[in-house]
Amino acid sequence: MVIMKRLPRSVGCPVELSLELLGGKWKPVILARLKDQSLRYGELRRLIPRLSDKVLTERLSDLQAQGLIVREESGKGVGFYRLTEQGQTLRPVLQSLYDWGEKRATELKVTVRSAHSPPKNS
Amino acid sequence: MVIMKRLPRSVGCPVELSLELLGGKWKPVILARLKDQSLRYGELRRLIPRLSDKVLTERLSDLQAQGLIVREESGKGVGFYRLTEQGQTLRPVLQSLYDWGEKRATELKVTVRSAHSPPKNS
Repeated sequence: MVIMKRLPRSVGCPVELSLELLGGKWKPVILARLKDQSLRYGELRRLIPRLSDKVLTERLSDLQAQGLIVREESGKGVGFYRLTEQGQTLRPVLQSLYDWGEKRATELKVTVRSAHSPPKNS
Repeated sequence: MVIMKRLPRSVGCPVELSLELLGGKWKPVILARLKDQSLRYGELRRLIPRLSDKVLTERLSDLQAQGLIVREESGKGVGFYRLTEQGQTLRPVLQSLYDWGEKRATELKVTVRSAHSPPKNS
């Protein structure tokens, strides 16, 4: 697996390894979007507008190399990304980050623009 | 609150806000260490050897400013860090990151040196 090259041999705490594997902000944001549905590249791009094409492409590529997501083609040749079985094991992590963020957003008066679905009329 | 200065006004998803607030690898690692016990600076330093003094000091300062941890003095004038009530709300996040990391460590053959307690004989 591609990911192995950067992994430490040992960590002081399992949390350290999780964050090493999830590295940075955007991988969990992408994974959270794929938690409940498969999405096309363009849909992910629209749902995460703060992420550039370059970074989104890189992160999707990393996540595929890590075996957490997979790209599949529908019958019509349209590509979709979805969580693999391994990626599905992240559900409790993604859900807890979602729940905590939702609570904090209310407290800190941060607007959550679009919680789940891609905009239908854009 | 100090933290407010860097927060976005709006986010696309609650997970984005959580990761904005927890920013990077080390804050969750520190918080996870404080999840079950109060710890002195020196104990945290020993438990997270990959973290430099400079970065640990900065992260502890950030976490205090964010209201997630607090520094308290015992009767003998020894300083301890512990989670605040707000910090305690992160327990499900920290636990899920811990559980996932533990499972992945086994699968990826990464050694977890010391899961919970500070070394008693060092």
